[in-house]
Amino acid sequence: MTPEVTPTLRWEGSARDGHLLMIDQTRLPIELTEIECRTVEKVWEAIKALRVRGAPAIGVAAAYGVVVGLQTLPKDAERALFDARLAEVTEYLATSRPTAVNLFWALDRMRREADNVPLSESSEMHARLLVEAQRIEQEDREMCEAIGRHGAELLADGQGVLTHCNAGGLATAGEGTALSIIFAAAAEGKVLQVFADETRPLLQGARLTTWELIQRDIPVTLICDSMAGWVMKEGRIDAVITGADRIAANGDVCNKIGTYSVALLAKAHNIPFYVAAPSSTFDLSLVSGADIPIEQRATEEITTGFGRQTAPKHVDVYNPAFDVTPAEYVDTIVTERGLIRPVNTGTVAAMVAPTAEPQAAS
Amino acid sequence: MTPEVTPTLRWEGSARDGHLLMIDQTRLPIELTEIECRTVEKVWEAIKALRVRGAPAIGVAAAYGVVVGLQTLPKDAERALFDARLAEVTEYLATSRPTAVNLFWALDRMRREADNVPLSESSEMHARLLVEAQRIEQEDREMCEAIGRHGAELLADGQGVLTHCNAGGLATAGEGTALSIIFAAAAEGKVLQVFADETRPLLQGARLTTWELIQRDIPVTLICDSMAGWVMKEGRIDAVITGADRIAANGDVCNKIGTYSVALLAKAHNIPFYVAAPSSTFDLSLVSGADIPIEQRATEEITTGFGRQTAPKHVDVYNPAFDVTPAEYVDTIVTERGLIRPVNTGTVAAMVAPTAEPQAAS
Repeated sequence: MTPEVTPTLRWEGSARDGHLLMIDQTRLPIELTEIECRTVEKVWEAIKALRVRGAPAIGVAAAYGVVVGLQTLPKDAERALFDARLAEVTEYLATSRPTAVNLFWALDRMRREADNVPLSESSEMHARLLVEAQRIEQEDREMCEAIGRHGAELLADGQGVLTHCNAGGLATAGEGTALSIIFAAAAEGKVLQVFADETRPLLQGARLTTWELIQRDIPVTLICDSMAGWVMKEGRIDAVITGADRIAANGDVCNKIGTYSVALLAKAHNIPFYVAAPSSTFDLSLVSGADIPIEQRATEEITTGFGRQTAPKHVDVYNPAFDVTPAEYVDTIVTERGLIRPVNTGTVAAMVAPTAEPQAAS
Repeated sequence: MTPEVTPTLRWEGSARDGHLLMIDQTRLPIELTEIECRTVEKVWEAIKALRVRGAPAIGVAAAYGVVVGLQTLPKDAERALFDARLAEVTEYLATSRPTAVNLFWALDRMRREADNVPLSESSEMHARLLVEAQRIEQEDREMCEAIGRHGAELLADGQGVLTHCNAGGLATAGEGTALSIIFAAAAEGKVLQVFADETRPLLQGARLTTWELIQRDIPVTLICDSMAGWVMKEGRIDAVITGADRIAANGDVCNKIGTYSVALLAKAHNIPFYVAAPSSTFDLSLVSGADIPIEQRATEEITTGFGRQTAPKHVDVYNPAFDVTPAEYVDTIVTERGLIRPVNTGTVAAMVAPTAEPQAAS
């Protein structure tokens, strides 16, 4: 986000007494309010209720959530007590959303940082963990900037670009993933016409993506999800870009429900489908997307999603939060390290496997 | 609809003093209320605002709307005055929805009936036009029953069936088109699992289709439009059935926005895509679907569709009410005269061209 814009999340104060502030994204675009998280339960609820959402932002929120959770310890807690609380807090936060791998990744980093520091007293540990959370946040900003830089070449002046859900600044600590590419292309002077799927049930596209693009003066047209195929057929779309919540070793992409349909429709219209995601979104322990757990969410998101009952009471509802797009439908994955194209087990490993040297961007 | 169910629309009273009663479908499923139409303006508004919707039901409503509109004439109006008012009323009603061809078809029938009766006095004419409207309604009921009878063979016991929008009893004077097939298959003892797309922006699937199926004790699961591709991928869908608002001579199908995507997704998953529509839905004057005008509707349907603002004010919106599915994606069109399969200019003409003999159902 540009400096004058309220950041998606920010830490205020010390490790011991500080707190996490986050935009309550469920209130956008009606009002821009921040929630103050002074307990780990409040952070958990904010992630669960999608007040903060988007895989990278969830990771940063969880890292700060650990710092908040440790504040219940006495100032001079023994290391054993500290470690016990750290385990409790990280295990608890891990239950907030089952699909976004960045959540587990960030919690792991916090645990590893604690493990790496052989201190017997906890007050110094606590400060070190705040630094680690701030490092995760800073890396997230740099990741967004790098994704935008690498991905901008994929878009040309005058193109129509479809996006689904929100993979913008609100989904990260920085400029976003998919939208970072659009912002970077626009900054290079390319005029784009963005089409934003509203993204039922929770309308992240209608509420958040359009809001971010309007703030940036980038032309955006809101459509219903069911219109994506038709605007492709009408020739209005030259590229599709989405984010990702988890990517398997073979390049299968788990993202917001509806992404699979959009990718398949894009393929049928010979429109390239791009995914933008940091390397922390890859879960190389999963051979393919078939192994990714799909979060099922409450029926009320569909039956009374707008504060008004829009379906018969007690109607059966199926509400998967995510779907999996096979790698074969993905033209390119844009990471902070460069472009993965074509997308397969070999190219994914070459770019993001821990032992591999990061490649130069193509 | 079964006898104990409130009919979608019904006429009460004489041609001179009677009125049209219609379920206000914008209030479903919250409440079942009827609106009383005693002026042609009220009928026009009911069609425009989708209080009555579905191509066949719009046709029946428009026919009765003509009868209501003629009530402003003095009892002993001259034929010339009668004809002038008839022209005025039919032209006015024709402006309510631009896409549903049944509207124009029904208005044409009313005009032709008037032309065919060489009476100089208007009171008898008025009664004859009520009889014609009632005939259109009755034929609509029989059409629904015949579509169900012809189409039931397409569905097998244990199948999952996806439908989009509402092509049920609420879209007709009778049992519906697409849903009539499901009702008929269920009546034969086939157990089906229906998936209903909620159908943004106006949620006819969530509000109306689920309501009708629950009334019939047919298992139905509500999903968002963006989930249709994913439930196909998961193997839950064996057949897709929708209605149609207009069908061109080559078999291209104009129907509720989102139908095109559903048809393309079905093809990609090797799932047959069926369309159920009466012969009055065909417009043989159109060579292909490219000639069908697509109604654009108000932006507020998307930005504040449920009484709550869900997008930034003044955001650009694209809101086509319909799309066109190429005939090549349509496995079969089920008409009241029988099945059209494969779907092309020749098979369409053989079944519905005025000069052709109706074929026996296959």
